[in-house]
Amino acid sequence: MAKTPVDEHPQKVYGWAATDSSGILSPFHFSRRDNGDEDVTIKILYCGVCHSDLHTAKNEWGFTFYPVVPGHEIVGVVTKTGKNVTKFKDGDRVGVGVIVGSCKSCECCQQDLENYCPKFVFTYNSLYHDGTKTYGGYSDMIVVDQHYVLRFPDNLPSDSGAPLLCAGITVYSPMKYYGITEPGKHLGVAGLGGLGHVAVKLAKAFGLKVTVISTSPNKETEAIDRLGADSFLLSTDAAKIKAALGTMDYIIDTVSGIHPLGPLLGLLKVNGKLITVGLPGKPLELPILPLALGRKLVGGSDIGGMKETQEMLDFCGKHNITADIELIKMDYINTAMERMAKSDVRYRFVIDVANSISK
Amino acid sequence: MAKTPVDEHPQKVYGWAATDSSGILSPFHFSRRDNGDEDVTIKILYCGVCHSDLHTAKNEWGFTFYPVVPGHEIVGVVTKTGKNVTKFKDGDRVGVGVIVGSCKSCECCQQDLENYCPKFVFTYNSLYHDGTKTYGGYSDMIVVDQHYVLRFPDNLPSDSGAPLLCAGITVYSPMKYYGITEPGKHLGVAGLGGLGHVAVKLAKAFGLKVTVISTSPNKETEAIDRLGADSFLLSTDAAKIKAALGTMDYIIDTVSGIHPLGPLLGLLKVNGKLITVGLPGKPLELPILPLALGRKLVGGSDIGGMKETQEMLDFCGKHNITADIELIKMDYINTAMERMAKSDVRYRFVIDVANSISK
Repeated sequence: MAKTPVDEHPQKVYGWAATDSSGILSPFHFSRRDNGDEDVTIKILYCGVCHSDLHTAKNEWGFTFYPVVPGHEIVGVVTKTGKNVTKFKDGDRVGVGVIVGSCKSCECCQQDLENYCPKFVFTYNSLYHDGTKTYGGYSDMIVVDQHYVLRFPDNLPSDSGAPLLCAGITVYSPMKYYGITEPGKHLGVAGLGGLGHVAVKLAKAFGLKVTVISTSPNKETEAIDRLGADSFLLSTDAAKIKAALGTMDYIIDTVSGIHPLGPLLGLLKVNGKLITVGLPGKPLELPILPLALGRKLVGGSDIGGMKETQEMLDFCGKHNITADIELIKMDYINTAMERMAKSDVRYRFVIDVANSISK
Repeated sequence: MAKTPVDEHPQKVYGWAATDSSGILSPFHFSRRDNGDEDVTIKILYCGVCHSDLHTAKNEWGFTFYPVVPGHEIVGVVTKTGKNVTKFKDGDRVGVGVIVGSCKSCECCQQDLENYCPKFVFTYNSLYHDGTKTYGGYSDMIVVDQHYVLRFPDNLPSDSGAPLLCAGITVYSPMKYYGITEPGKHLGVAGLGGLGHVAVKLAKAFGLKVTVISTSPNKETEAIDRLGADSFLLSTDAAKIKAALGTMDYIIDTVSGIHPLGPLLGLLKVNGKLITVGLPGKPLELPILPLALGRKLVGGSDIGGMKETQEMLDFCGKHNITADIELIKMDYINTAMERMAKSDVRYRFVIDVANSISK
């Protein structure tokens, strides 16, 4: 008889899971493997609530296998290490992000791009090397191969730092890859949510001039006064959009809904780069003429490799960058998900796991 | 009273023009300016027939002002030079491509990117600095500012070399800009027409491995035996497409019809680049997930600057690269346009202007 989630491994774990496409989460008992020679066992303190958690809980991408325990913005404390683990010791504060495994031998893995390894293992809703399912950070502990565990900078708070593990690296990595780091250059950030608000902070730390592009006029004050953006462009203001045509060197597009790319391309200068990280579920309309006439490009990017994720955390530590969060208890998660779906969050929910989950 | 095309300038010219959106071309008398201090007067020998000529003749892009004399793949002989002209002398064989003017002072012009200057002047269907209309190479002579005149390599034939002035630079420039020049890397060329067949030749000269991607099975032999491609991928062969997933470093997409970008993105490796040069008139569908999951990009490009166009010609001279052409007389142009619209040409029509136009 196939083993159940609660008895397939020796270590008992308690978390919250969605069990069908309603996406409603409820208490869930399951298990994790014993700590192996390469493993780090982590008591989870905080876990950020990412849009992917919602998409997966509701099976909106079509590849959820229930029950699913979401959560891939994990900060915790090491409670056990395997005999081959040299980087971490008991009591260390560490982070776990979107991936917990990869093949370690392909071209991508050899280039520190585990995130593009064809066999990479998601932190949840994925199959681990041993064939058992992975469960995420909405739970009291996790066992992770040391290669996928990150040192958490001493000066960063665990709660507001947690979203860096996904939201942070999702915008940091394309900034590095596409060269969006040159001081004085003009970056547009489309969409001011979990990803967008971190993009603004990172860009300002790199010395860029930042314009937030949003459909919400009420975000102007926050964008400038609170997050440090240089200007705000209301995307429904035709006159201001017209005046802004051809003024931006790059745009990071964090919008996850369906939207045409033409208007954003128009804001770019010649050689401008539009980087999409919002992962809309359906194809977007790409007009080719404006792409050609300004030698522009539309580029994708998906989180980052482990080395670069550590680099991002260290950069955030150096520049005191964290997410703006709303700290919640575990049993508020269903309300939080509903609010997140309506973009009613400034700017990331983080679950106070250690203080609101108990066996 | 406004001057007519035939009397607005002192030099009489004879060419063929389209006068309405039927796109049908017929004999047309007009005039060109006297040769100025910076100008080169050119007796036109040959002119290639580009898809843009057809689009413009039929007003398919919506910005044609009639009458229009198409033609921007011009090879001819210098017959007069202005007193400030140092690069050319009477009798020199020269080329003129897609642009004959730009502001010479903007950021683009200063970076040898006249093709992206906001004020650049097309060789035809455009307004010159003096406010008069430009007419293209389907005519017996042309007067051009020396900055936009190109030295034509001694070893290249004038007829089959003519298409390099547009088709050649249209594929050469993105190969240089996007780094598609590394020997041994794998390039897919989608569409085997005027642009595609030159792309194959250039790519082989750079030492790339080239796969032609086409919907026409009858192009396989030509692609490999005649043009030197390494392999051929029939885009309707699902099994072969599946086997080719993730195998290409770059794709140059020369297809001008509406087509989804998803299947091409699937052929690319991680970090792969899809460059579109076919200029479809309507937006294409761009799925974001495959873009993100492989950190791929879709880039545009539009011809090239004057310095790079000269570099391309010299490169073609060194490697003996010309277009495969069908040489026609001027009075065959309407039939040629019809055939080109059906892709019934191997691979470019070139008009024998000097031997088939007479005043």
